[in-house]
Amino acid sequence: MTHPAAIALGVRLMVLAASPDESAAQVVPGTVVADEKALADLVAFAAECEVVTFDHEHVPPDHLRSLEASGVVVRPRSAALLHAQDKAVMRARLTAVGVPCPRHRLVADPGEVSAFSAEVGWPLVLKRIRGGYDGRGVWVARSSDEVTEALRSGVPVLAEELVDFRRELSAVVARSPSGQGVAYPVVESVQRDGMCVEVVAPAPGLPAHLAVEAQRIALTIAAELDVEGVLAVELFETVDGRLLVNELAMRPHNSGHWGIDGAVTSQFENHLRAVLDLPLGSPAPRAPYTVMVNVLGGDLPGAYSAYRHVLARDPDLRVHWYGKSVRPGRKVGHVTVCGNDVDDLRDRARHAAAHLRGDIDE
Amino acid sequence: MTHPAAIALGVRLMVLAASPDESAAQVVPGTVVADEKALADLVAFAAECEVVTFDHEHVPPDHLRSLEASGVVVRPRSAALLHAQDKAVMRARLTAVGVPCPRHRLVADPGEVSAFSAEVGWPLVLKRIRGGYDGRGVWVARSSDEVTEALRSGVPVLAEELVDFRRELSAVVARSPSGQGVAYPVVESVQRDGMCVEVVAPAPGLPAHLAVEAQRIALTIAAELDVEGVLAVELFETVDGRLLVNELAMRPHNSGHWGIDGAVTSQFENHLRAVLDLPLGSPAPRAPYTVMVNVLGGDLPGAYSAYRHVLARDPDLRVHWYGKSVRPGRKVGHVTVCGNDVDDLRDRARHAAAHLRGDIDE
Repeated sequence: MTHPAAIALGVRLMVLAASPDESAAQVVPGTVVADEKALADLVAFAAECEVVTFDHEHVPPDHLRSLEASGVVVRPRSAALLHAQDKAVMRARLTAVGVPCPRHRLVADPGEVSAFSAEVGWPLVLKRIRGGYDGRGVWVARSSDEVTEALRSGVPVLAEELVDFRRELSAVVARSPSGQGVAYPVVESVQRDGMCVEVVAPAPGLPAHLAVEAQRIALTIAAELDVEGVLAVELFETVDGRLLVNELAMRPHNSGHWGIDGAVTSQFENHLRAVLDLPLGSPAPRAPYTVMVNVLGGDLPGAYSAYRHVLARDPDLRVHWYGKSVRPGRKVGHVTVCGNDVDDLRDRARHAAAHLRGDIDE
Repeated sequence: MTHPAAIALGVRLMVLAASPDESAAQVVPGTVVADEKALADLVAFAAECEVVTFDHEHVPPDHLRSLEASGVVVRPRSAALLHAQDKAVMRARLTAVGVPCPRHRLVADPGEVSAFSAEVGWPLVLKRIRGGYDGRGVWVARSSDEVTEALRSGVPVLAEELVDFRRELSAVVARSPSGQGVAYPVVESVQRDGMCVEVVAPAPGLPAHLAVEAQRIALTIAAELDVEGVLAVELFETVDGRLLVNELAMRPHNSGHWGIDGAVTSQFENHLRAVLDLPLGSPAPRAPYTVMVNVLGGDLPGAYSAYRHVLARDPDLRVHWYGKSVRPGRKVGHVTVCGNDVDDLRDRARHAAAHLRGDIDE
């Protein structure tokens, strides 16, 4: 999804991918198939680039520091990116700069979990501080009997209070090395099994003061952490009307995909503009509401006929495939629809996504 | 510009390009560099494709017929495409199906031009029936003294009355093999030196009956000629309020570029959907007005600084570079801006394009 933005901007995109089957590798010329965890591969690749950036957080921080030490321009810088790679570092820093977070504590054994639970109660959330993704590496423990698996991994674990939230929000911003920042409308992000399944932009019925507060939090984090590129801040809107930061991502994020069709400038284009220190484009919405629903891997055999049906049924629908092989539950694409009536848009986008997954028969 | 549409649709695009420097070759993996005028090259390329289509009209008709005879799916078919390759064939066919055209006659020598001028007066227009592009192969002759160059080429020449027009319009439609058609809003196309420089969608102040008539003409031509893919019909709006067809193009056309940012579904996506016989997307506009201005090759040295200035000055501006080397007068990109106030949009898009060309110093 970054390549179309790069084409229009006249920017030559080079991709390092772990396999020629990866989404970007299929559509970007000259993709280098290499191991993003091998320093030598990174060094060789970076030698061809003016700026190095990311579409995930899995490049080892030590390697990024080595690249930077040798003069490679890495954006966001390793010192910023670490906050999206390590939840303990993130929580400590956000707390230090006054950003509201759930109560949390690093825990090493069941005794420390129990001590923490005495303060915040059960259930509580246990998160590996590194390597989690789409709900993996996160456990909800209802009692001290359920903490064993999370602590077994060997990776340090962060315990957090289970927040009583009304819904999840996401505030996506872009920030350039010059310090220019833009904030996208705050969206509602619907999660299922720890994975984003649906986004509504802007979040329906969000009080203006909370929308402004969420954008302010995201711009503050971007500035305090010196983020260069896109930053997505996932937040809880609590039942008592507060905002608490859940997670950070420093790259174009699922909660910003709606903007390809729904914003003047997509997050992918603004990520490129930001890491190249070009002036940023307007993040303004192009319609009163845009709804994005992820297409999850499902029943492949009927996919082509479902595709024809979905396009024919809704000529306003925007379909985005990722070129991924289909595995149950894997995000293989998304659909977007823009308009005025958010309930109608939700129905249409959900129908299309369910159909493409194979969950609806004609 | 077709590649971003292909990526989102999950369609694998393969490109045959005359040089690795061509726009598409730079951004599409696995581009085959070959000669589109050599049948053997076409045969080898087509063997890898489910459907073959075009972004220009310069593949020889005989070669396309050979491909079709061997079972290759060519869309639009050679029999349709010929009307965009040969102006004499086009004029004869449009006249036969009742589409209004300027008065015209095939001429072989100065005597025939004089005889035609006795009917339509001077000046008149002389066009090579094949191979013209962006004003090349077209002459305006004010008297019998000025017909020599046009007749010298050896290619047959079509003489046409010089139409007294208010402005030029373009009606872009897409049609699929199933016969589904969609019509984009009729646009005003501003020409300079025979080349499109600016497009306003929809054409400001166009009476509704003429807009409908232009769309009807374009859909009629698409159906009568059995066009598969995008068809652009360039028209004159005459000073006495009639429409006359000037030229046809059977591919995504400069007069449709506004739709990348300004329509729900771009002409590039609908061209792909049409040639693959997928249901077509909505051609509806996303804003009251969209203005597109071509960026012509100019003064390169200041280009990067101009680029930064233009992005910073107008965050709503959409910039599209084609990756072409800069030659004076060559189309190297375009800018688009969407909104309510057409005069303001024209000013902003013209300023940006002039700046990127190097015609404005800060």
